[in-house]
This record gives sequence, C-alpha cells and structure tokens, in this order.
Amino acid sequence: MRNKLSKRFQYEYPRAALTVDIVVFALDEEDLKVMLIQRDLKPFQGQWALPGGFVHVDETLDAAARRELQEETGLKEIFLEQLFTFGDLDRDPRERVVTVAYYALVNLEGHNVQASTDARNAAWFSLNELPELAFDHATILKAAHERLRGKVRYQPIGFELLPEKFTLRQLQHLYEVILDRELDKRNFRKKVLGMEIVQETDEIEKDVAHRAARLYRFDQKAYERLSKQGFHFEI
Amino acid sequence: MRNKLSKRFQYEYPRAALTVDIVVFALDEEDLKVMLIQRDLKPFQGQWALPGGFVHVDETLDAAARRELQEETGLKEIFLEQLFTFGDLDRDPRERVVTVAYYALVNLEGHNVQASTDARNAAWFSLNELPELAFDHATILKAAHERLRGKVRYQPIGFELLPEKFTLRQLQHLYEVILDRELDKRNFRKKVLGMEIVQETDEIEKDVAHRAARLYRFDQKAYERLSKQGFHFEI
Repeated sequence: MRNKLSKRFQYEYPRAALTVDIVVFALDEEDLKVMLIQRDLKPFQGQWALPGGFVHVDETLDAAARRELQEETGLKEIFLEQLFTFGDLDRDPRERVVTVAYYALVNLEGHNVQASTDARNAAWFSLNELPELAFDHATILKAAHERLRGKVRYQPIGFELLPEKFTLRQLQHLYEVILDRELDKRNFRKKVLGMEIVQETDEIEKDVAHRAARLYRFDQKAYERLSKQGFHFEI
Repeated sequence: MRNKLSKRFQYEYPRAALTVDIVVFALDEEDLKVMLIQRDLKPFQGQWALPGGFVHVDETLDAAARRELQEETGLKEIFLEQLFTFGDLDRDPRERVVTVAYYALVNLEGHNVQASTDARNAAWFSLNELPELAFDHATILKAAHERLRGKVRYQPIGFELLPEKFTLRQLQHLYEVILDRELDKRNFRKKVLGMEIVQETDEIEKDVAHRAARLYRFDQKAYERLSKQGFHFEI
C-alpha cells in the first residue's frame, strides 16, 4: 500500500514542500499566551512546536491554516492573518520546506479551547516561559509578537483578544502584555477615551473581589474606520 | 536531452510550484512608476507581468527575488521587502503555483535601470496607466501599493525612493503620488520639519528653470529610530 502511494508525483525540477504554521495568541489575567503542540513524530520528537502542517495542493493557504488549526487545537472561526513566509534552507532537517506563517488572536472567553486533540498534546504557554521550540518556530513566534506589538500602535487589532464587554483595566492589561511594559493608568485612559473607540455600557463587572468597574465595549464603526485609516497610539 | 531531464523528481504527494514576484516602484517627476516585463512565453504570452520566476530548491526566497530581479531588469542592491504570499487555486492556468511577492523601492537617479535585458521587453509604467496584467499580478500590485501607502504613514520608508539630497518639494511630491492626493504645502513642511527626520544642507538645486530650492538630506539616526519605533504621519 505504502509502495503504491509513494513517489506518484513527478516533476522536472525539485520542489520545496509547502507548510503553514500558526502562532495563536490569547490573553488571560496574567499574561499573553501562545498555543503549542508537542510533536509526536521525528524530527524534534517530543519537543514543542507551533500548530501547522502541509498545504494540500487543492486548498488555499488560508484554508490550510484554518484546517490545521482546527485539527490540532479545536479552534475555529477566529481572527487569522498571514504573517510572513519563512524559507531558510536549513529550517527543516528533512528537506527544503517553505512555511507560510499565520498569527491568530483568540478571546479565551469566547472559545472552547481544547487542551488536547488529534492524539496530540496541546497547551497554552506564557510568552515569558516558553520551552525550546522545534524548527525555526522561535523565530516565527518572535516575528508574530513583533507584528502584534507594531499593530496595536496603529490599528485597533488588540480588541480581538478581549471579551465583548471589558473594563478599562483589562484593556490596559492587554496593551501592557503586548508591549511588555507598564503603562500610566491616567494617561492610558485619556488616550483610549480620546480615540472614541470604546463606548461606556451601563453595566459593571460581576463577581469580582475588588470594587466592580464599569464595562466598555468597542465602537464597531470607529473600530473599522481606524482599522482602515490607522492611528498612532503613542503610549 | 529533454527526456533525460524531465520528471526526475518524485514525491509522495503533489506539490505546488513556488515562485517569487517583485513589484518594483520608482518615482519620477510626474508619477509613481512600476516596472513590468512583457511575457515571451505562454500563458499570457505578450502580456505584461511583474518580474519574477521559480524559486530554486537551494536558494532562499530573498535570494530568488534578487536573482530574478537582476536577471529580468538589471536592478541590484536595492531595497527589497517581502510583501505577502499569494496562493489562490486558479492564479496560474498551468498548475498550482504559490508565489511569494516582494516589493522594491528604487531611486531612479542612483541606479542604471535597463529598459530591456534577458531578451525580454521591460518598461516602467505609471500606476495610473497600467496595461492589463498577467495572472493575479494586478491584485499583487494593488497590495504592494497599499502596503506602501500604509507604510509612509508610520515609517520613513518613502525616502528610499529619493536621491540622497532632495528638495522639500520632491519630498512632498513623493507623499502625494504614494497617497494619490494633493497635500497642503505649509502643513506638510511643518510636519516634516517637526519630525526632525530631514536636515538642511548648505546646497541648493542646480540647473532648474524655477527658483533653486534648498536641498535636504534625511537624518540617518532619526530615520533608523523612527523606522523602529514608528510614527503616525497624519497628512
């Protein structure tokens, strides 16, 4: 059977294999997290890696990324964007593999994230406590974090990581973990409210130990307008 | 000979072919230009297309882009950046081809741009007077123009298109053709000088019919700092 399958596809020139890899970011109370998969096959057997896999010849790159993500993590219908294509010669010890990297943003409240699927071990890791990663996945992850850090400064992308209604403390926390530094509370609130991107709701937090804070939602129209025209969030 | 070469490379699963395509922008007195190549082979024989070609299995993506650019246009040692990877199923009528698109910025004064090399017809086209393009190259070109338009607002990238010393009129012209709209002269100058990215030189324009204007150069340190941290050029 194996023999029948193998080597059926022939080309005049050697071809690289094409894969997708996805950096899935999520936010929790403490930190910015990324989802990793423990590899069950060689190479890098037992090591942690980004979810991903081979692109089928009859599926688009986006479709491949969504399929792999769902197969390996159970995540679907999330924000997904192409990041960069990595094609270093030695990035896979088996052969030449070019990978189209994506990044995804997940709001942990809105999604039922499975810790393990497809007989594979999947887990969230804090960006500050990463294991050694397979292939060039540390480089890909770094590029994704940089993109995220750059984007929050000129597009309202970070909101994808928050629940529908959130406190300004949560919003500030989002910016702090992405930018990896503390921000001045008064200054941050002034800037955010000045952009008119968030709207006050008439609700407050529930079931919290501290004093319940006002809940906000983002203004869809302002969000879309700012996504197109961009801004510079100097904080 | 052909027979000996053909079909030597065999794989278990079908593989997409991998190419690079490069959008080369340049600026002249009138307009933003892009370099196109007239195809001498099928498909789209005789139609204009972006320079590009197949990635060799033993070269990086960047190396492939630089090689193709030099082979087809004579351009080398220019600013080149990966744009996006296009993988729609039907973008090439022959078979599945995934292309890693790049964009390049050329200062026409600094480079000896050949109009034709490699027995191929190459020419600069104004973005406003484009011929019908082969494959999905119109989509790729549009994405490159959008990237450029976005980038000039938050990075000092546009300077790659100018000669070393330039007038503020040339700089404004650069922004106007990239953004495709007229800018207010007084407001533009105030913003640019306020960013401290350009330095006055003690030279003025030579051989011009109008009153010779002051020449400026950009401040390398400010340029690099702003390239990293970004800004928002609201004009």
